[in-house]
Amino acid sequence: MSAAMPPGPIVLLPDFGDRDPYVGIVKGAILSGAPKARLVDLCHGLAPQDVRAAALALRMAAPYFPAGSLFVAVVDPGVGSARRILWARSRRQQFLAPDNGVLSWLAGGDALVELRSVENEKYFLSSSSATFHGRDRFAPVAAALSRGLSPARLGPRVDDAARWPWPEPRSSAAALSGVVLSFDRFGNAVTNLPSARVPEGARVVHRTRDLGPLRSHYAEVPPGRALAVAGSAGLVELCARQADFRARFRAKTGDPVHVRHRR
Amino acid sequence: MSAAMPPGPIVLLPDFGDRDPYVGIVKGAILSGAPKARLVDLCHGLAPQDVRAAALALRMAAPYFPAGSLFVAVVDPGVGSARRILWARSRRQQFLAPDNGVLSWLAGGDALVELRSVENEKYFLSSSSATFHGRDRFAPVAAALSRGLSPARLGPRVDDAARWPWPEPRSSAAALSGVVLSFDRFGNAVTNLPSARVPEGARVVHRTRDLGPLRSHYAEVPPGRALAVAGSAGLVELCARQADFRARFRAKTGDPVHVRHRR
Amino acid sequence: MSAAMPPGPIVLLPDFGDRDPYVGIVKGAILSGAPKARLVDLCHGLAPQDVRAAALALRMAAPYFPAGSLFVAVVDPGVGSARRILWARSRRQQFLAPDNGVLSWLAGGDALVELRSVENEKYFLSSSSATFHGRDRFAPVAAALSRGLSPARLGPRVDDAARWPWPEPRSSAAALSGVVLSFDRFGNAVTNLPSARVPEGARVVHRTRDLGPLRSHYAEVPPGRALAVAGSAGLVELCARQADFRARFRAKTGDPVHVRHRR
Repeated sequence: MSAAMPPGPIVLLPDFGDRDPYVGIVKGAILSGAPKARLVDLCHGLAPQDVRAAALALRMAAPYFPAGSLFVAVVDPGVGSARRILWARSRRQQFLAPDNGVLSWLAGGDALVELRSVENEKYFLSSSSATFHGRDRFAPVAAALSRGLSPARLGPRVDDAARWPWPEPRSSAAALSGVVLSFDRFGNAVTNLPSARVPEGARVVHRTRDLGPLRSHYAEVPPGRALAVAGSAGLVELCARQADFRARFRAKTGDPVHVRHRR
Repeated sequence: MSAAMPPGPIVLLPDFGDRDPYVGIVKGAILSGAPKARLVDLCHGLAPQDVRAAALALRMAAPYFPAGSLFVAVVDPGVGSARRILWARSRRQQFLAPDNGVLSWLAGGDALVELRSVENEKYFLSSSSATFHGRDRFAPVAAALSRGLSPARLGPRVDDAARWPWPEPRSSAAALSGVVLSFDRFGNAVTNLPSARVPEGARVVHRTRDLGPLRSHYAEVPPGRALAVAGSAGLVELCARQADFRARFRAKTGDPVHVRHRR
Repeated sequence: MSAAMPPGPIVLLPDFGDRDPYVGIVKGAILSGAPKARLVDLCHGLAPQDVRAAALALRMAAPYFPAGSLFVAVVDPGVGSARRILWARSRRQQFLAPDNGVLSWLAGGDALVELRSVENEKYFLSSSSATFHGRDRFAPVAAALSRGLSPARLGPRVDDAARWPWPEPRSSAAALSGVVLSFDRFGNAVTNLPSARVPEGARVVHRTRDLGPLRSHYAEVPPGRALAVAGSAGLVELCARQADFRARFRAKTGDPVHVRHRR
């Protein structure tokens, strides 16, 4: 039972940005219900309503947070519609999120083992608006969970949550082929190609540009030169040393990336 | 007396942005005086020196923070001039802010019931500069308050604080007329029209564009279409589903917005 | 010994920005090792890989943080190369940073008195990647230090850390001459000229534009007018009242700035 998890931080992943008071208001609403909760921002500058970027961020982050962490992912283009709010848990952690696929890419030791539909209005703010569920539903439910509420009180178990399949790379005799998933602030491209599946001596190709073998760090090439590295999430990343790969090579999400086997 | 308030978080509302270390330095100065204080960012990306956006943010946020919260609003174009620093309290919370109107829009249960001019230099840092009162005055005074300092020690009561009237909508036989107050990160427009004063069947008009009746959530219209919703602050908001209302309709602060009664 | 320092906050100074989850992942990794650590963001929007801006931020911030603070400065263009990670301490505080000069400008009471090369892999995450030392090395070492680890366990003392000299102003019979070091969010220019070395009546000149005597605050000149003030870090700053000095006068880093003595 998640109720037996040691209490960990509440980790916020909204897409509200930092120009408006919305993230702060969510924090205030959590602290009103759970004055001792520890709050951590996973990030607050996600591209608005970019559910896939949020899903990737959760996949990258969950393994590094303590057992008992409660992730609150409010990236919610469908707020106010009939979409459900989900509570979920993996073996180590809990999650609150809209039922829009944002929990799809948790995998391995972070795979979800139980999901519930959050329906018990007793735990929502009575001022409930239709457009700010972060404040009126996610925050008070997170506060209640951090004070030890049994998740079974929130609503029934479900097994039909929205899921996107992780985009598995395709394998052929000549290559392992994948795509650019997203870019980080530096313009580095994260791909869906596992670094562990790049054989020694294989070459990484972005569209038609050969980036050479997988390097272990940026400084192996001269400044400005493109390279492929084993990224921090276990995935191949495409970079330019001391430069912005995306801008310099006009890279886009979905660009094909190949690992060409040595012949 | 505010001294009897339960100790709550110190909520920071500076306009320093997150590129420079100024917000962090204010936090360091608070923690130097009150090592156990809990600090929360309301937001730190406010448009620089936009006192009205800060006033609106405080109005939206105060009801959702715990009793005993101390808001520190350092949006201060007049720093170093003769403008006063104010301490204020509502029935539930405390505030520190420059005397420039930023506290004007607290209303209802958050209305201010006592104001003081913060003048006692004993509570300022001795390194006082003329340009960084956030560090040299607001931070040490906030730390002292959070440790239980009686506000009466800060300076005399005042009743002539800078105030802007809240822009009340105008009512006529045909319509309730207001304006766009501000925009959020998504390009949604917040107006001064209370959602509760929109009769059933009335239509919301931005300049000359009819946005239809007040909707309860975004998903009631097709993607890209403009709509008006009952916003999270109890005010009518103008939006475009999965799009940026401001950009798409070239909306501006001060644009007229009407609620046309059904004839 | 730093082990005897009272435990203070862990102050994060990464250049990861807030769009990606990297800052949050570093926090998760610290909390996994030290669940009670208090985390403070100094700022997270530094220009990417701008080591000098980070060095200036540390110089400005260190005096205002509590004794026992541990600054973690992950501005690290050379990540994964042979550059070392340094632990350092001043009389009051500790620092973790890449050996790239970012600790160069700590001075006065914050001058470093001991440096070590962080080499003991026992304190690194076993999942160590070559590109995210913030997560795999800085975070677990910070957690261990905050739990009381003796810094001597991290690695040997060193005395050959990368250092840039602070750019001292040049003095002549007619003037004290310096440069623009950096700009803040408001477009104010920070120079290397100590305010305390500007004699009464001396005039401040940016390139060839006479900004008049050093003012004590912005409101001494009309809106839009340029002025020089004694900045909050003890350095002369160039500003425009209620305007952006950098944009209005096309100022650049390295621009000459002179203090012309009265004749």
